[in-house]
Amino acid sequence: MADKPVVRRRVVKTGISEERTNSSKVQSQYQPYKDAAWGFINHWYPALFSNELPEDHVEGIQICGIPIVLRRVDGKIYALKDQCVHRGVRLSEKPTCFNKETISCWYHGFTFDLDSGVLSTIVANPEDKLIGTTGITTYPVREVAGMIFVFVREDDFPDTDVPPLSDDLPFRFPENSERFPHPLWPAAPSILDENAVALGMHRTGFGNWRIACENGFDNAHILVHKDNTIVHALDWVLPLGILPTSDDCITTVEDDKGPKGLMQWLFTEKWAPVLENDKLGLKVEGLKGRYYRTSVVLPGVLMVENWPEEHVVQYEWYVPITDDTHEYWEVLVRVCPTEEDRKKYQYRFDRVYKSLCLHGFNDCDLYAREAMQNFYADGTGWDDEQLVATDVSPITWRKLASRWNRGIAKPGRGVAGALKTTSLRFKDTADGMRPGYKVPKVPDEA
Amino acid sequence: MADKPVVRRRVVKTGISEERTNSSKVQSQYQPYKDAAWGFINHWYPALFSNELPEDHVEGIQICGIPIVLRRVDGKIYALKDQCVHRGVRLSEKPTCFNKETISCWYHGFTFDLDSGVLSTIVANPEDKLIGTTGITTYPVREVAGMIFVFVREDDFPDTDVPPLSDDLPFRFPENSERFPHPLWPAAPSILDENAVALGMHRTGFGNWRIACENGFDNAHILVHKDNTIVHALDWVLPLGILPTSDDCITTVEDDKGPKGLMQWLFTEKWAPVLENDKLGLKVEGLKGRYYRTSVVLPGVLMVENWPEEHVVQYEWYVPITDDTHEYWEVLVRVCPTEEDRKKYQYRFDRVYKSLCLHGFNDCDLYAREAMQNFYADGTGWDDEQLVATDVSPITWRKLASRWNRGIAKPGRGVAGALKTTSLRFKDTADGMRPGYKVPKVPDEA
Amino acid sequence: MADKPVVRRRVVKTGISEERTNSSKVQSQYQPYKDAAWGFINHWYPALFSNELPEDHVEGIQICGIPIVLRRVDGKIYALKDQCVHRGVRLSEKPTCFNKETISCWYHGFTFDLDSGVLSTIVANPEDKLIGTTGITTYPVREVAGMIFVFVREDDFPDTDVPPLSDDLPFRFPENSERFPHPLWPAAPSILDENAVALGMHRTGFGNWRIACENGFDNAHILVHKDNTIVHALDWVLPLGILPTSDDCITTVEDDKGPKGLMQWLFTEKWAPVLENDKLGLKVEGLKGRYYRTSVVLPGVLMVENWPEEHVVQYEWYVPITDDTHEYWEVLVRVCPTEEDRKKYQYRFDRVYKSLCLHGFNDCDLYAREAMQNFYADGTGWDDEQLVATDVSPITWRKLASRWNRGIAKPGRGVAGALKTTSLRFKDTADGMRPGYKVPKVPDEA
Repeated sequence: MADKPVVRRRVVKTGISEERTNSSKVQSQYQPYKDAAWGFINHWYPALFSNELPEDHVEGIQICGIPIVLRRVDGKIYALKDQCVHRGVRLSEKPTCFNKETISCWYHGFTFDLDSGVLSTIVANPEDKLIGTTGITTYPVREVAGMIFVFVREDDFPDTDVPPLSDDLPFRFPENSERFPHPLWPAAPSILDENAVALGMHRTGFGNWRIACENGFDNAHILVHKDNTIVHALDWVLPLGILPTSDDCITTVEDDKGPKGLMQWLFTEKWAPVLENDKLGLKVEGLKGRYYRTSVVLPGVLMVENWPEEHVVQYEWYVPITDDTHEYWEVLVRVCPTEEDRKKYQYRFDRVYKSLCLHGFNDCDLYAREAMQNFYADGTGWDDEQLVATDVSPITWRKLASRWNRGIAKPGRGVAGALKTTSLRFKDTADGMRPGYKVPKVPDEA
Repeated sequence: MADKPVVRRRVVKTGISEERTNSSKVQSQYQPYKDAAWGFINHWYPALFSNELPEDHVEGIQICGIPIVLRRVDGKIYALKDQCVHRGVRLSEKPTCFNKETISCWYHGFTFDLDSGVLSTIVANPEDKLIGTTGITTYPVREVAGMIFVFVREDDFPDTDVPPLSDDLPFRFPENSERFPHPLWPAAPSILDENAVALGMHRTGFGNWRIACENGFDNAHILVHKDNTIVHALDWVLPLGILPTSDDCITTVEDDKGPKGLMQWLFTEKWAPVLENDKLGLKVEGLKGRYYRTSVVLPGVLMVENWPEEHVVQYEWYVPITDDTHEYWEVLVRVCPTEEDRKKYQYRFDRVYKSLCLHGFNDCDLYAREAMQNFYADGTGWDDEQLVATDVSPITWRKLASRWNRGIAKPGRGVAGALKTTSLRFKDTADGMRPGYKVPKVPDEA
Repeated sequence: MADKPVVRRRVVKTGISEERTNSSKVQSQYQPYKDAAWGFINHWYPALFSNELPEDHVEGIQICGIPIVLRRVDGKIYALKDQCVHRGVRLSEKPTCFNKETISCWYHGFTFDLDSGVLSTIVANPEDKLIGTTGITTYPVREVAGMIFVFVREDDFPDTDVPPLSDDLPFRFPENSERFPHPLWPAAPSILDENAVALGMHRTGFGNWRIACENGFDNAHILVHKDNTIVHALDWVLPLGILPTSDDCITTVEDDKGPKGLMQWLFTEKWAPVLENDKLGLKVEGLKGRYYRTSVVLPGVLMVENWPEEHVVQYEWYVPITDDTHEYWEVLVRVCPTEEDRKKYQYRFDRVYKSLCLHGFNDCDLYAREAMQNFYADGTGWDDEQLVATDVSPITWRKLASRWNRGIAKPGRGVAGALKTTSLRFKDTADGMRPGYKVPKVPDEA
């Protein structure tokens, strides 16, 4: 290599270029987002699928560094901080509920009212003066279309200020059909529609939630999908990438009421699909147009309209668990008015969508997100990334999220993941257990 | 949830209550205990069972962040710091003893006198000027009833100040029968009694030693045992919990000589067993009284008199290995004057005690201790725990331990566990090896 | 132990002796070496064996905290920084090369010129203003005797200053036969000789590169090999250790040109082999002299002349990956002028050298190095080690390396191993993957 004269086509500089779109001035406009390693708090997040919490069952999860326990009683779901006030133990590890109104800590019997969270009694110490003077935070719950949502809030966030679930869900149609016309596909359904059925899955992602979130609506990343089976099986025209052609290629939505987010004007003249690159010998071979549109709303919910087929919409969430794990949700929604519709949809989901889309197609995004983790984990990436024109998407998102989030979660304290190096973490890892989302329950006496 | 008016029975406050018994004033009385993450040094600790160290064998362990190597020669056991003065290597990894007086480092042949610890020669460098000018710390050893105890001390703690083993073992009977009468059960044996036989096991606990220690004599935690097999098989009356009824429910022992600790006046009017809770629909069904009494002495030794049966006593130790691992010992002691007695006792231990008590019953305590680890590991728990009346037990212990410990171990330096994130730690973990206590020996050339 | 009077042969002191050879004055002469946890940069290092990189293949590795990607095109190898300028992703994870002149990032199509490293285009964004204004560092490559070497440099180290590969390889013979006579064995071959064949292996070592490096030429460590199979099978006289007899037992080489290092005058009167220790009852039984000589040159390359047999030389490298992992190379070199010679050499390597030497003999060195890791990892060892006369070898090396290294690598930023506790690291560990050297490639869609 040292023998041959170096051929330079242009001026070669390694290091940070002044031509990157994320100048320090731009960066200063999204500093809150850079601070939000543990997530945005005081927002609605999906917690579990309905069928993960049968009647009378208890599950423990963690969101934004907060441990949360859920219990279903007579169909209704309660969510409370999964941390006994006594010695910090997780109630969910060994579910102990003596009646329908309370949940108890299995260790010393501290008992909490499901509705209010107050410490209402202690099993073998019912006169203790601590009773009634403290309690655990409760979290509002909504259950729709087979999904359980929890409003993850700061301890002192008042009930009266809790916004409707719809404020943290994607734009709905046809309400937004005028503002965001969709001549190439029918109105996308919403999880809030009557008879909406949400089918999907969630799994833990090994990286920060923001890195995962930005991948979904980034119009240059679709290159990772060029070899996916479904693309070729269904003969899709999937571009190599899509380029913004004007400054208004993205519209932000910042109404007084409703979700806050951005819409990308895909399949209009504001975005030009790139179907070939002569110099590199690349050319998209598909014949069938595959129209879709992406948008994202706080706290970081992706919507892909008309995906993977007409009358189906794909939602994604990247729910922060800690500062370096998140729960990745992929959900397909379709309105199914009849039982027959539900069966057909479940069948198509099981036979086509799950394997080819949720796994096949989206699995590429999993490793893509993981591939960025080392660069961003120690902060280097947030300073040294060099963004380009197509990154107008994440940049716009970061600024908007910085303006409209309802709170920046503090780092977890006294919870799993607060300290990365506990012996318990190493023990679980030695036993083959990856960092996770749900709390493993203690086994019965063998 | 947001639709229904919130029902409040009492004033709900989340966060720290002023009614907790661990006020800041109380906390200041046990600050030394809060500083003792790596343990109390200059105390006697169990190291191994006798049968874990046959004649001429060598084993390496770690206590209070100090690596220790043991060797048995002609029946006698020597304990020395398991760290070659040269380059810090553990002698125990590849036992190398050329004669009965010394132990050598397998790496460069540095040789230490077993008795004094002095560097007495180097295998291929016997004239080096370092010889005789340095050495490794020695630790007094006592072997009783099938257990090996080591006095784990600071490097400069003089031999002349080494207390008798009995100073760090639980109260003995009948010496203390007058001070602590036991009308409901016969005098509990001691490991120091003639013909005492100690049977049990030790395993690594994944959490700080203090969190483990406090569990054993905490009278409200017995709730975790309510479903244990042995309780129902033997039809025990095991309370839901036990409440203190007076300020002198615990007596501390702080004599000039002898062990320092506390005794709990269980099964007297000073502690009231709670056998039912109407509101929660709980009621203890057992018929057979099961009398026992707990006490704890420095450095953190639990005694359960009359457990699990008459004439048997249970001891527990929570020996600090690092600040987040400890070795948990469960030992049952019985005096067996004849060989026939020994056989019967060994048989009952193998057939009943080991599975139903040491595993079945005590396994609950294992997960209970682990369940507290995340809350305390980053310090949150030490500040934010909210203790109640029954916590007079750990609070008294913490204050007493703060007054009477013989030294607070410094954080380990240059030893396993000092740095939690070495590649060696990750390699072992990848290979399925949990954090442990004993040093794995290097394999022979395959 | 407390009963028996302590027998002291000499004054026993634990702790740091004033007689250690690494006094603070001596230590100050190698402070740069103490700072070089991540390695010496701007040096030639082995990257892969030639057969690990077939035509058109791509591999990712890491050296001195720098991720490096290699690609072979028409027989020629290119090495570039394995970190896309966009969002830090490793190009090697999913090799994507659209032509013979470039390598692309599989994520967003950023495309780099192999020769210059410049960002020459972006697959679906060929007009972006970032193009041509930045790029990734290139690294000179040399391929000899079946090994691929890379000059790992700082980003701004000029091409014109890149030294020849021979400057970072051991002393050659017969060029140095006058300066370093070898009456007892024939001139050792070099990897740079015509028809030189290098056979060997590389594997990841779990510890800092410096700790590994110092083991190889330390004349007192050979004690660990006393029980190795090959020693007894071939009836070697392998000393218990070798002692320096004069101050000039080591000669440093610090010529204007050429490698910088040290030569040890083994098998001259300057080093006395120790074959027995009466006091400890040790005596070497071998009959056949086994003559060899060790030397080491920057950046830390060991040469063992005449090992394991005449006309064969052993080289070792300890290539820093991070501050606590290194890639350990063991390579045997022989000049094989004919195809017949190659076959015979390969056969002897497969049948004898690989199992008895590279594994059997050298495996002892693996655990010896790991055994030091805890002592040095948190810095304790660098301060508290107590060196002796035989440590003139590592001490001389440390001083020389401090004088002649071409740069001290900065800690890795935004790369694997910069942060030890990422969830990705724990996930891989849970899956049984040890910390490594090569980048695992993303699997194809299943």
